[in-house]
Amino acid sequence: MSPIADRLLMGPGPSNPYPEVATALAAPVIGHLDPEFLGVLDDTCDRLRTAFATANALTLPLSGTGSAGMEAAFVNLVRPGDPVVVGVNGLFGERMAETAARVGAQVVRVEAPWGQPLDPGQLLEAHRSPALIALVHAETSTGVANDVASVAAGRGDALLVVDTVTSLGGMAVEVDGWGADIAYSCSQKCLGAPPGLAPITVSERARARLVERPSSWYLDLSLIAGYVEAGAGRAYHHTAPVTMVGALHGALGALMEEGVAASCERHRRCGTLLQDGLVDLGLELFAPEAHRLAQLTTVVVPRDIPGGRSEADVRMQLLTEYDIEIGGGAGQLAGQVWRIGCMGHTARPANVMALLGALGEVLGR
Amino acid sequence: MSPIADRLLMGPGPSNPYPEVATALAAPVIGHLDPEFLGVLDDTCDRLRTAFATANALTLPLSGTGSAGMEAAFVNLVRPGDPVVVGVNGLFGERMAETAARVGAQVVRVEAPWGQPLDPGQLLEAHRSPALIALVHAETSTGVANDVASVAAGRGDALLVVDTVTSLGGMAVEVDGWGADIAYSCSQKCLGAPPGLAPITVSERARARLVERPSSWYLDLSLIAGYVEAGAGRAYHHTAPVTMVGALHGALGALMEEGVAASCERHRRCGTLLQDGLVDLGLELFAPEAHRLAQLTTVVVPRDIPGGRSEADVRMQLLTEYDIEIGGGAGQLAGQVWRIGCMGHTARPANVMALLGALGEVLGR
Repeated sequence: MSPIADRLLMGPGPSNPYPEVATALAAPVIGHLDPEFLGVLDDTCDRLRTAFATANALTLPLSGTGSAGMEAAFVNLVRPGDPVVVGVNGLFGERMAETAARVGAQVVRVEAPWGQPLDPGQLLEAHRSPALIALVHAETSTGVANDVASVAAGRGDALLVVDTVTSLGGMAVEVDGWGADIAYSCSQKCLGAPPGLAPITVSERARARLVERPSSWYLDLSLIAGYVEAGAGRAYHHTAPVTMVGALHGALGALMEEGVAASCERHRRCGTLLQDGLVDLGLELFAPEAHRLAQLTTVVVPRDIPGGRSEADVRMQLLTEYDIEIGGGAGQLAGQVWRIGCMGHTARPANVMALLGALGEVLGR
Repeated sequence: MSPIADRLLMGPGPSNPYPEVATALAAPVIGHLDPEFLGVLDDTCDRLRTAFATANALTLPLSGTGSAGMEAAFVNLVRPGDPVVVGVNGLFGERMAETAARVGAQVVRVEAPWGQPLDPGQLLEAHRSPALIALVHAETSTGVANDVASVAAGRGDALLVVDTVTSLGGMAVEVDGWGADIAYSCSQKCLGAPPGLAPITVSERARARLVERPSSWYLDLSLIAGYVEAGAGRAYHHTAPVTMVGALHGALGALMEEGVAASCERHRRCGTLLQDGLVDLGLELFAPEAHRLAQLTTVVVPRDIPGGRSEADVRMQLLTEYDIEIGGGAGQLAGQVWRIGCMGHTARPANVMALLGALGEVLGR
């Protein structure tokens, strides 16, 4: 057995989990229809409602990673030929467009350069009566925030799908305030649980327009509601991943104790500390300040890495010498940026100091 | 905080996990691209090859429960209008037919009564040139085994999809011996890990016929192969559920140490012990002896439950007084049978004794 790696996780996810997760993972596995588990599940859904700032009855952890949440949104809302406006200014906007197209949407792409925010006006004017408008709140590939509120305010009859994978728990997500119809996230970033679940919430307006018998049985929200909603009789759909739900429940317990606003403030504070420190090291931040995420920072790879090493060499040295993980660029930014996450339980000042110190050493600054 | 329930899990799954799972779950979370994790993933895929008895390169844990494995099989192999022969003699055969239909298959159902095995000849003669033939190896809803080998031997050019959700690790699964094209399973039954992953294996013949750009992005096996297969460059697809993969790796470690054949023999022995004991209690077994599973036993609910209580009352009493979970009937067998699993780490003689003693007490026998 090799020694167990223990990393400081400062990539784009997973982040280091809250201590409550370890406690939850140590609990015995119980059945997915056990009243004890159903209590944990109900409580998890309640906590997710608080995190999403919503009263939506259908709010739950889907049994897949964040990308399964994305797929569930489109699979359950898109009918073949539906005009779907998708904002694309990074890898996850691209993924939305691809996922929507695969279930038959007539995708109307509204683009902005990677590193710039979407223009809400362009999204609203892209089609005269879209069935759905979809955008990413916090682009993990670029470190840029998109203005969901402005799009939400003007979208009229269109359903609104918001990707909150990198925002939930780390910056203000206001599902009911926006009037978003489906928002989904992941477990392993600002929520501070391991990867494997996709929190999702569905408005009553969206429920009235769910596709009947969508192409995916596994992600059919109407069937899943029959198990998750206590009043629906707990009809068996698939075996819930009880261990992961317990872990998420633990992480959300930490969030509830701290308070969502306080958690967002902590993410903001640590992000600022990190970004100021990176600038002090003489590094250039990729995302423009007005639209920059705090929880996920993109740094331009400097030209003068000592010893002529590559950006990947730097990441590997951080990993092997300091047990610190940061992320490389993704998609068209591969090789050009580093992505440094400061999310969930990772978002603490001491961790920022560790990263800044180690990176300074490796870069000889 | 309520006290943590610790159950003897003798329902249709989850089973009690092997001790190696708790050790794995206690390890720190690391990144999905961390070389340490990629080593665990590669090793997990190797162990799955041994469990499935296959040399298939594309063998991996999918990031969803067993039903996601089923969906992945049809999503990646079915083109709209394809004739797909599905054996239906229980809930999971029904689910196969439904899942295949949703992705556009022209489903040809070959039925047998719930509780009876499928007739291989009927499956082979149902259509003159099916694109695909699909059946469940061990029907979790009825406790009946289907004869995969005979279907496999005669299926000609048709691809063969086998559901091994309740068989893998508990009875002989011979993917290469059969020549099955896709077999999938779950983590929480005879493999003795928590629920949340779907082991799946794909033959070279099936790979050559994978649908390009299937309706599901999340379950697109061609894209997933780009991350899972070491030679493919580890292209990011979705964030692997590292904690659950670690747990499965631990459980498979227990299986490798025991040996697959020895594990199957243990499941057989414990199933016989259980079934003999149930008959000694005067209970009637539902599945005919020649086709009866050892790892999942269906028992006819007796008419003379003391105190005029229901079958659900009996299960609740087992749960609350003895911390033992058994399952009720599913689908058309709801209320008519109990389902008693003896799978994974649960499959030990002392557990059988505990269940028989407790059930005897509750039924006054």
